Amino acid sequence: MAKLFFRYSAMNAGKSTSLLQIAYNYEEQGQKVLLFTARIDDRSGLGVIASRLGLQRQAATFDTDTDFWALLSGPQRGSGAQPIACVLIDESQFLTPAQVRQLHRLANTVGLPVICFGLRSDFMGQPFPGSAHLLTLADDIEEIKTICACGRKATMNIRTSDSGERVREGEQVEIGGNKRYQQVCARCFYSGAS
Amino acid sequence: MAKLFFRYSAMNAGKSTSLLQIAYNYEEQGQKVLLFTARIDDRSGLGVIASRLGLQRQAATFDTDTDFWALLSGPQRGSGAQPIACVLIDESQFLTPAQVRQLHRLANTVGLPVICFGLRSDFMGQPFPGSAHLLTLADDIEEIKTICACGRKATMNIRTSDSGERVREGEQVEIGGNKRYQQVCARCFYSGAS
Amino acid sequence: MAKLFFRYSAMNAGKSTSLLQIAYNYEEQGQKVLLFTARIDDRSGLGVIASRLGLQRQAATFDTDTDFWALLSGPQRGSGAQPIACVLIDESQFLTPAQVRQLHRLANTVGLPVICFGLRSDFMGQPFPGSAHLLTLADDIEEIKTICACGRKATMNIRTSDSGERVREGEQVEIGGNKRYQQVCARCFYSGAS
Amino acid sequence: MAKLFFRYSAMNAGKSTSLLQIAYNYEEQGQKVLLFTARIDDRSGLGVIASRLGLQRQAATFDTDTDFWALLSGPQRGSGAQPIACVLIDESQFLTPAQVRQLHRLANTVGLPVICFGLRSDFMGQPFPGSAHLLTLADDIEEIKTICACGRKATMNIRTSDSGERVREGEQVEIGGNKRYQQVCARCFYSGAS
Repeated sequence: MAKLFFRYSAMNAGKSTSLLQIAYNYEEQGQKVLLFTARIDDRSGLGVIASRLGLQRQAATFDTDTDFWALLSGPQRGSGAQPIACVLIDESQFLTPAQVRQLHRLANTVGLPVICFGLRSDFMGQPFPGSAHLLTLADDIEEIKTICACGRKATMNIRTSDSGERVREGEQVEIGGNKRYQQVCARCFYSGAS
Repeated sequence: MAKLFFRYSAMNAGKSTSLLQIAYNYEEQGQKVLLFTARIDDRSGLGVIASRLGLQRQAATFDTDTDFWALLSGPQRGSGAQPIACVLIDESQFLTPAQVRQLHRLANTVGLPVICFGLRSDFMGQPFPGSAHLLTLADDIEEIKTICACGRKATMNIRTSDSGERVREGEQVEIGGNKRYQQVCARCFYSGAS
Repeated sequence: MAKLFFRYSAMNAGKSTSLLQIAYNYEEQGQKVLLFTARIDDRSGLGVIASRLGLQRQAATFDTDTDFWALLSGPQRGSGAQPIACVLIDESQFLTPAQVRQLHRLANTVGLPVICFGLRSDFMGQPFPGSAHLLTLADDIEEIKTICACGRKATMNIRTSDSGERVREGEQVEIGGNKRYQQVCARCFYSGAS
Repeated sequence: MAKLFFRYSAMNAGKSTSLLQIAYNYEEQGQKVLLFTARIDDRSGLGVIASRLGLQRQAATFDTDTDFWALLSGPQRGSGAQPIACVLIDESQFLTPAQVRQLHRLANTVGLPVICFGLRSDFMGQPFPGSAHLLTLADDIEEIKTICACGRKATMNIRTSDSGERVREGEQVEIGGNKRYQQVCARCFYSGAS
């Protein structure tokens, strides 16, 4: 039976690179993959999955209205040409809980493997709803590791202001704008915390 | 630096056995551990961590008012006698988000290792708040595996009524009472689902 | 498809406890398991799997002549009564490379899950042939963690003489006798090493 | 304390991509890395680490005479300019057992993290000496997953002749030449096996 996979990390770990590598691995075997990224994240252009290493590729987009079950569970999935061997979703912290449920059910009842990549926590150390549900339901969970400036493993993220000061409160999501994010280890995350 | 560990599973995997084994491993090395379980779970007696294999042991209890930071971060931790080498918490799905944060900070700033054991999801496949925050913050996450009656890996739980019928709605927590829980694989979890 | 699992650790981690818990989990679901331990290891009596927590249970024994493929691949496996749902092997560092191959093939072609528990390295930090082949072929590898006297994770083992001195050379296997083994972290393992 | 990491996989999983991503992650933080690949593997040019996704980069080379302890344990490591934050080694199945021991000791006593990437088994399902010792000593082991043409996870490798026939015997290492390798799942590996 297929699985729902969740590959989580802090910022700047190489999630998109890893996603693009897996897509390549499937296609090299002559298999078909379907790529999604969040419509809300248009830093590299709408529907573009881009790696800091310079790789990029077009993907379908999802927003909170996307019904993955309706899109992917039906007989049309295999009709006509080649069936989809794997669904790959970037920026999956932006999935709704209902969408995570749809993906979990697709993997476990329809047999379609789904691999989601996303951030684990926001700049306040709080869960993203999509990630919390992926962590709760995924059949296979794996961390993509990256490092803090201090050399330890980074597991958290912080947001800084235009002037480089750490910002501790605000909206969970502020894509683009002039805010900046940085991955840090838990020790650095709590340093100076009250 | 110490870590916050989360060992999650479905029902009946052996979480308490694993906790008692780790306590034994520490004590065999002459090190001191502190055990907690949820006050709400008194199936085996208040503050008793009991394994289905027949092992059991007394533990301190926590409820939603317990302040782990106040209890464990202070200088009294090492004063007098032997310092605590590790904190072990059973039934950690009942921790509050604030308590998970306290434990994460204890591990990463005070240097006290904390190992939490708990259920990942409830009988409706929804997150427990404690588990969702442990999955979001823990420095090390590992599944304790168990099996479904069908032979596949069990990752979900279901609740049945007195008459053995599956119950799909209700309060998240009903300890004791005459409800029953059973671990199932995701496929069995969705079978018959609308 | 079934898998060959390898659960490895240093000495005194709780391997036998974990094995007995898994056997219990299967049997609680009404499923049949087959337990093996090494004939060479008779510290707790021939064919006895014993946990330091006080649990113990009789098992079949294997030695270098045991042919797991002949024993378990045939139609007799399901004939008569209940088929075997899982094979559990303790002290699997003593398996031969050919036996590991048999077990890998059983899992992946016959569909019989096999879960092996064993030490990863000997007192000189050298591989056991059984463990090296399990690490090379197993479909799923997981460490059972334990701690060094210094508080770090123990991944290595040392042997001491009757007088408590560390012994750095000798036969790989000396069960019983008056030698003693102790798990240590890699740092303690190398301390004083030339 | 630093660790020796081993990231293993079958052929064509994306090991080199993953290595190059980690190097990038360190350098983006202003930290210095040292890259090695096997002198024996000159498919992409001597000392070139190349990813099937098109990325590539120059690296130092090692052969069986390289003494990593002599190279990296001394005070010169930090002298002059910036100290090395991490050593990354591709094609690490070609390390000798003694070299793996040097790297394990470097990580655990000198405190220099070492991340090795390599194949787990050869085309006959036998261990590479380097990989067997990495699996035996590494402080952290992780699989990089890839797929078989049949859709299952590939864990094994096969060699084929010029005419595309599977070859079951021969030298362990034949880089270049006109032999070909393909990753397969264990089930496909054993299919047609006597």
